[in-house]
Amino acid sequence: MEYPTNDRNKVKRLPKRGHYDQETIFGILDDAFLCHVGFEIAGQPYVIPTAYGRDGEVLYLHGSSKSRMIQHLATGAPLCLTVTHLDGLVLARSAFHHSMNYRSAVIFGTATLVEGEEKMHALEVISEQILKGRWAEVRQPNPTEMKATSVLRITIEQASAKIRTGPPGDEAEDYALPIWAGVVPAELTFQDPLPDPAMDQAHELPASVKALARK
Amino acid sequence: MEYPTNDRNKVKRLPKRGHYDQETIFGILDDAFLCHVGFEIAGQPYVIPTAYGRDGEVLYLHGSSKSRMIQHLATGAPLCLTVTHLDGLVLARSAFHHSMNYRSAVIFGTATLVEGEEKMHALEVISEQILKGRWAEVRQPNPTEMKATSVLRITIEQASAKIRTGPPGDEAEDYALPIWAGVVPAELTFQDPLPDPAMDQAHELPASVKALARK
Repeated sequence: MEYPTNDRNKVKRLPKRGHYDQETIFGILDDAFLCHVGFEIAGQPYVIPTAYGRDGEVLYLHGSSKSRMIQHLATGAPLCLTVTHLDGLVLARSAFHHSMNYRSAVIFGTATLVEGEEKMHALEVISEQILKGRWAEVRQPNPTEMKATSVLRITIEQASAKIRTGPPGDEAEDYALPIWAGVVPAELTFQDPLPDPAMDQAHELPASVKALARK
Repeated sequence: MEYPTNDRNKVKRLPKRGHYDQETIFGILDDAFLCHVGFEIAGQPYVIPTAYGRDGEVLYLHGSSKSRMIQHLATGAPLCLTVTHLDGLVLARSAFHHSMNYRSAVIFGTATLVEGEEKMHALEVISEQILKGRWAEVRQPNPTEMKATSVLRITIEQASAKIRTGPPGDEAEDYALPIWAGVVPAELTFQDPLPDPAMDQAHELPASVKALARK
């Protein structure tokens, strides 16, 4: 399925890097759990980093019930949710052709508050997006905690992905310059887990964390 | 120097995590080179990932002269520029107290187009922010390339940082649960450089890339 394009989500600069199919966009979303959500209040844009989870065609956000972002988005205000993976520095022979390898997804839509069974489900989806398997290992939210938390369901109206891969592209005459060119790959990596000093016993490292460390 | 606070930049949720001094905010900016810029056109928010550079109290962005973001921000429209470092997953005993360790900076301001000598300087600042030392190693921009590129100078009106560090904080009664808790540190890492297959000779790896690999 492709998202319909118009002026809002069409990739105009370097259109060959643009993608509108769900498979590509969902792939970018599924490789991350941190997004930047944009919204506007009285003409002022705000961009806030937050966790998310994808469940089919729906995205979930959560936050304090008192959060300005949550309260504002719950009114159905238009939002933009962007996820970016930096995959590498692209080092060309000319300053001009320096670039980055990246995969980004830009989502347009609106949100509604989620209650009841779907709310607990959404929290599990977000938790599983951050660390698969963790949800089942921990104490589940109690009614007080559920009340302190709000969950938003985002319906994706339109979306686009923009992807750059591969080596630098220089001007033809610059390839003869005696300058090293190439790509320095980059990725988010996880280091050895640090046990909470407050743990009163040496509990075994859980499967969720072991699986993360293997990546 | 502290940025003045009001409803726009005051950290309301978990206010102890909020910081408004330039040293803290600039430190977060200086540890990154990729930001998410938010702006609004006709009520629709947009969030776009892009590179930036800091020079004293000024931030620079660059892009194609034809870029919608550049053209829109050049009108002096309000913007929000956010930089986020994910420093770790915070794994608590309860689902509710799961969190992340992070450092984020949220910048509010407006932009103006930069021309002349400052434009070349700004491009060097952005380049050096991405990879220190690279600018002097490569072919400098020619007039055609300068014309194709626009540079914005952002004057920071207000800013805030939000920082979480340390182990999870659980409810008192949950510390007795037989659940592993702790932090999994995370960071953006760079891997071994991949030389451009189009390099016609084996040029030595430049100092800029060697320094990056040592990190």
